[in-house]
Amino acid sequence: MELRVRFAETDAMGIAHHAAYVVYLEAARIEWLRTLGLSYRDLEASGVSFAVTEVSLTYRTPARFDDLLRIDVTLTERRSRGLRFGYRLHALASPEPRLIAHGTTLHVATDRAGRAIRLPEAWATRLDAATAGGAC
Amino acid sequence: MELRVRFAETDAMGIAHHAAYVVYLEAARIEWLRTLGLSYRDLEASGVSFAVTEVSLTYRTPARFDDLLRIDVTLTERRSRGLRFGYRLHALASPEPRLIAHGTTLHVATDRAGRAIRLPEAWATRLDAATAGGAC
Amino acid sequence: MELRVRFAETDAMGIAHHAAYVVYLEAARIEWLRTLGLSYRDLEASGVSFAVTEVSLTYRTPARFDDLLRIDVTLTERRSRGLRFGYRLHALASPEPRLIAHGTTLHVATDRAGRAIRLPEAWATRLDAATAGGAC
Amino acid sequence: MELRVRFAETDAMGIAHHAAYVVYLEAARIEWLRTLGLSYRDLEASGVSFAVTEVSLTYRTPARFDDLLRIDVTLTERRSRGLRFGYRLHALASPEPRLIAHGTTLHVATDRAGRAIRLPEAWATRLDAATAGGAC
Repeated sequence: MELRVRFAETDAMGIAHHAAYVVYLEAARIEWLRTLGLSYRDLEASGVSFAVTEVSLTYRTPARFDDLLRIDVTLTERRSRGLRFGYRLHALASPEPRLIAHGTTLHVATDRAGRAIRLPEAWATRLDAATAGGAC
Repeated sequence: MELRVRFAETDAMGIAHHAAYVVYLEAARIEWLRTLGLSYRDLEASGVSFAVTEVSLTYRTPARFDDLLRIDVTLTERRSRGLRFGYRLHALASPEPRLIAHGTTLHVATDRAGRAIRLPEAWATRLDAATAGGAC
Repeated sequence: MELRVRFAETDAMGIAHHAAYVVYLEAARIEWLRTLGLSYRDLEASGVSFAVTEVSLTYRTPARFDDLLRIDVTLTERRSRGLRFGYRLHALASPEPRLIAHGTTLHVATDRAGRAIRLPEAWATRLDAATAGGAC
Repeated sequence: MELRVRFAETDAMGIAHHAAYVVYLEAARIEWLRTLGLSYRDLEASGVSFAVTEVSLTYRTPARFDDLLRIDVTLTERRSRGLRFGYRLHALASPEPRLIAHGTTLHVATDRAGRAIRLPEAWATRLDAATAGGAC
């Protein structure tokens, strides 16, 4: 997934603010699910959310306004009630992409009341197939 | 209502990003209602929202990181289904406050389905009393 | 220019927060300039900014998480030191796009010290050609 | 340091978006430094930044719109060129505060060119005194 650093996302240091990356990870995760045919919007509409329980990010080099970033998403762990994703962000600079940051997020499936529940069967199946096929 | 410009709210020009002001207006509006004994949180919980239908802002001088801002809120119009607020933002600089921006927002009361409804009676009464008393 | 409403940009009403639109306008404006061969990033690097002096937005229908939005940008006024843009945001829904919001922004060219200056000659020429050619 | 969850910081799940916490940590860190007589604004003006190199957050229970949060900041490590802070966020609910999240951030002092440098002497001295005195 590719996106551009917005001017609004920069800070007075002239670089993308470190909180903006957390939003980038989310956008990339949702696009990655879409490529598997899984709509997070539909999941939400059905009353299931992937609540975020952990975020961890390591920043390597700054991203600047208007940089085009590529975010690679990997499903690194599939539990009965949760998921862990890994991410690597590169700026598409020449002569070669430059590593900006990497990180992980941990999620638990919840119902509308915020209680942990099992992943919906269709999602579990699709995610397992994707993982087995090497898509992540 | 007073608040400090957060570092995350600045941009690469070194000043508070113009979108951050829209968030400041909202925070100030909600605090102003609180001073009248009106909890927007409770209103939301009861299924009523004040949907924003117009925002207008004029920027006069930049606000910078860590500036302490004072936001004065005025209820400028009370309709059966809507409200208009006026705002003036000053940076608390010496020797005297410096005008940062001024603006207005227009709101319509809506139910959970997003349909326009009349303001709840208790809110209308309290807002009228505040206006009559010169609080705004 | 097209973009998707990010989950982080929604609020507890389940819709895109009204401040997020101000960021969308900025992203669309910068992309529109890019289509004219004008890089706002390069302009900034040369010490010239387009400071925002007015923002005005009218919200018609809510945008929701994951909605794909199309933002049409028009240069509506070209002064010696400033620019005014107009915007129309549609959600790309079926059977036809749905109007989400429209608005305007006013900008003044400034140097690094924040003083109003004339638009760089190359920018003025390019913008006038675009306008004359009906591109906006 | 106390702050209120802004409506703009909530998401369609009705809770504070997980990226907002990263901004809270920053605001709390800067207020904590202020209590030691250290102005991050002045540090920035002198050309020194505390670039963020790691962020880690664990989310325990959701924070909701209008919740009043207390953020406790601890300096957990003082290196020649960097700092590590720990944070605990509580919602000030009755009968007792509820743990919302905890986390850490790692920072490196940098000059305007982004190169790692030693902490300014005055800052190192003040931070060490604070730590020794049990302030953190």
